Amino acid sequence: MFLQNYWYVAAEAFEVSRQPVPRIILGEPVVLYRTEAGAPVALEDRCCHQRAPLHRGKLEGDNIRCGYHGLVFDQTGVCTEIPEQDHVPPQARVRAYPSAEKHGWVWVWMGDCALADESLIPDFHLNTDAEWTSFQGIIEMGGASQLMVDNLLDLSHLPFLHAANIGSATDTDPELNVEKGEDFVRVTRIARGIKSSKWQNDLGIQGNVTQEKMITFRPPCHIWIAIATAEEAGPKGNGQVMNQMILNSMTPVSATSCRYHWGFARDFNHGDAGVTKYMKDATDIAFNEDKEMIEAQQKNIDLDPAAPIFNLDGDEGGVAARRLMQRLNAEQA
Amino acid sequence: MFLQNYWYVAAEAFEVSRQPVPRIILGEPVVLYRTEAGAPVALEDRCCHQRAPLHRGKLEGDNIRCGYHGLVFDQTGVCTEIPEQDHVPPQARVRAYPSAEKHGWVWVWMGDCALADESLIPDFHLNTDAEWTSFQGIIEMGGASQLMVDNLLDLSHLPFLHAANIGSATDTDPELNVEKGEDFVRVTRIARGIKSSKWQNDLGIQGNVTQEKMITFRPPCHIWIAIATAEEAGPKGNGQVMNQMILNSMTPVSATSCRYHWGFARDFNHGDAGVTKYMKDATDIAFNEDKEMIEAQQKNIDLDPAAPIFNLDGDEGGVAARRLMQRLNAEQA
Amino acid sequence: MFLQNYWYVAAEAFEVSRQPVPRIILGEPVVLYRTEAGAPVALEDRCCHQRAPLHRGKLEGDNIRCGYHGLVFDQTGVCTEIPEQDHVPPQARVRAYPSAEKHGWVWVWMGDCALADESLIPDFHLNTDAEWTSFQGIIEMGGASQLMVDNLLDLSHLPFLHAANIGSATDTDPELNVEKGEDFVRVTRIARGIKSSKWQNDLGIQGNVTQEKMITFRPPCHIWIAIATAEEAGPKGNGQVMNQMILNSMTPVSATSCRYHWGFARDFNHGDAGVTKYMKDATDIAFNEDKEMIEAQQKNIDLDPAAPIFNLDGDEGGVAARRLMQRLNAEQA
Repeated sequence: MFLQNYWYVAAEAFEVSRQPVPRIILGEPVVLYRTEAGAPVALEDRCCHQRAPLHRGKLEGDNIRCGYHGLVFDQTGVCTEIPEQDHVPPQARVRAYPSAEKHGWVWVWMGDCALADESLIPDFHLNTDAEWTSFQGIIEMGGASQLMVDNLLDLSHLPFLHAANIGSATDTDPELNVEKGEDFVRVTRIARGIKSSKWQNDLGIQGNVTQEKMITFRPPCHIWIAIATAEEAGPKGNGQVMNQMILNSMTPVSATSCRYHWGFARDFNHGDAGVTKYMKDATDIAFNEDKEMIEAQQKNIDLDPAAPIFNLDGDEGGVAARRLMQRLNAEQA
Repeated sequence: MFLQNYWYVAAEAFEVSRQPVPRIILGEPVVLYRTEAGAPVALEDRCCHQRAPLHRGKLEGDNIRCGYHGLVFDQTGVCTEIPEQDHVPPQARVRAYPSAEKHGWVWVWMGDCALADESLIPDFHLNTDAEWTSFQGIIEMGGASQLMVDNLLDLSHLPFLHAANIGSATDTDPELNVEKGEDFVRVTRIARGIKSSKWQNDLGIQGNVTQEKMITFRPPCHIWIAIATAEEAGPKGNGQVMNQMILNSMTPVSATSCRYHWGFARDFNHGDAGVTKYMKDATDIAFNEDKEMIEAQQKNIDLDPAAPIFNLDGDEGGVAARRLMQRLNAEQA
Repeated sequence: MFLQNYWYVAAEAFEVSRQPVPRIILGEPVVLYRTEAGAPVALEDRCCHQRAPLHRGKLEGDNIRCGYHGLVFDQTGVCTEIPEQDHVPPQARVRAYPSAEKHGWVWVWMGDCALADESLIPDFHLNTDAEWTSFQGIIEMGGASQLMVDNLLDLSHLPFLHAANIGSATDTDPELNVEKGEDFVRVTRIARGIKSSKWQNDLGIQGNVTQEKMITFRPPCHIWIAIATAEEAGPKGNGQVMNQMILNSMTPVSATSCRYHWGFARDFNHGDAGVTKYMKDATDIAFNEDKEMIEAQQKNIDLDPAAPIFNLDGDEGGVAARRLMQRLNAEQA
């Protein structure tokens, strides 16, 4: 049901500490913590003995001791101590998920450990690039990860769902191009001479703008949205290009829920805390609009999972992403 | 599972406005709104594109624009605009349910549109008859519609469930008559010389009364209770007959829940606001007693759906109604 | 799924009164009340007529009248009155569960009435023995009864789950003995010279102690834990033995929840209210730690019921209890 041999975002870096925290990822219980040296550890959050969640236990050095009967597991998942018996059988172990901290996020590899290769971690470096100013957020969503993939690959929803903030009322006639790769789908939207949005106005942009958005999906649930905005005329000068990158990864919790990790990076007003606060607040509002819509969709889907959907021209990217996922699921099965 | 080719109450008239509202009827999502001219509209509350609920959208004239990607549907459910594409394919549409406002309620036809005939809307005109004084209410019930049909067809529960307000302690030996028609069941209960109830006492009726209650069930979920009450003696004079009509329609939401729309009309103390307030308060209390009991029954049914029931003489009407519904369900299937 | 021909604890004695109270036991709805003479009555909490719960009704002498249509049932479950009809058919009845009050608890027999024998009620007399001081408690647990059986048969969890109160940090190397009877499992744990626990310290015990714990499981869900504690040295004198008995009965509500009735009796500081209060508070804390762990286990089990468990040496008792239950279930089926 879920693609296993992939890196998934398990948490923002700050969430993982010396206090174990639980996550459900692809329906599996995972406990996250850091070694004394600071490396993230991801173990099955279910003691091999009686299925107690390990996140209720305590760290001892780099190991975790179950809070129920005191079994100790090292960061590879091997049981190193059973308090009441001398012999620790080799089969006493929990699953260890390869994990890594990169680009501000903690990643876990949910499939075959032998295939885990950190160089395969998707490139979300703009979360932490010193040349850009960025902020991040997390949203627990009561809707399938795929619904957010559809959402982000088809930005025709901006003038409607986000009319009051990030949408431009006239952004309804873009040039659309869809590129379908072996392991990615890329939608390019170019909107020329559209009205600037509320958000842009508040940041001092007046009049019309031209925006190029390049949206790249990579399995299983990662999306980059590169946005280049140029004012046609106005106080910021003709043709000045502002670049933004929205980083998105929607880790499935279950078939009908996900944990959405996002980042927002910009190359303008670098380090301006006031602009950052404004944009963070606006993003929180807009992404909450997405959350409400995705959860409302999911309720309709739950009511009748067989109800048809109808693909528009703008869904070419979403449809390609679904097909790519189907192909990869078939290959996995 | 549900009878489709029938009119169902979707809302009280005041609930339907220029602000779209959602309903679940027979398990289907429906959005209700009014045209600029005031006519009610009922559409599938699930955009044909991505299954977003239309009630989160906005009206434009008589049309509704989806709040997600901006598709516009007219009141017949036909998509008239897809913002990002010129061509609107004919299959782009949502289901339109025939609807009508009548007798203070907004009705929807859940089956084959070709069969929708407003003359088939059941006669609940006493909700709005100028010769009578009436008030209405709505109760969301966590129990099957059928449980309320059983409740209303067997008023032997009044002396017990409603002992403190509308029940008469001695109303336990009525003359009962059950008429079983092709498309209705009618139970007539005549109770002679019973003690007046708390409710009646508070309205100035003392001593004993004779009551005739005529309860008429019509599929799928409509019940009329005509009550004629005569004081045997007392300040209001011998033999004065007071008429009440309780109007009931229990629209299934799911197999285990319903939305109960009711009306209460009287031909006495016409227009007396104090009496109306007293009766409204008393009815709210009594109907909430019904709600609590129906929901408690439903919990027991959920615990063991196969637990038997035992029909009493007083259930002849309820049993006939169940058989009538079974026959109609079989005919539909 | 559940063993039927057994006595189960339905309530603490004080919970059963002239006000009917509902319970779900082995998935069945049961109403409990007392006769005028004070004897407990347990009836099916589902009227044979329309499945209304009888606990919403009222007592009339030793009988209960359904709050919906007024049917009356005596304490044997036989319907004695149907208000609107003269004839009461013999099949009009609800199930009566043999019940008894013993050892401070109200018991019900969930199986064949012909086999109900009060002498089979398990011996929990220390709840009410005048020579001992005791207190009781009730915990609703969102976890299977079996999880609590595992918990109590393997007290190796004390130094970990209850480290802050009743556990001794060095109680990890006991002498263990498991006796497997036809109808019981008994685990004896002797821990010599272990550190006294926080709890013992607060009660004036210092230094090391030797503890013998004898844990006896009897189907379907009863456990006695007899604890004999001797100080090695200290203000209470060498070799003074203090006896405690923890009485436990975990009545299944459903396959994944139970109602845990417990008692705690001691033969020391007899009648000392301060000691009783201290121990009651400490027990509440410790048993709530158990509740949180059992509910966390159950969530993991719900997530993947097929996830394996791994038995340790200390699970010999728990495994024997599971096998005994499996054998009895097979015999029942």
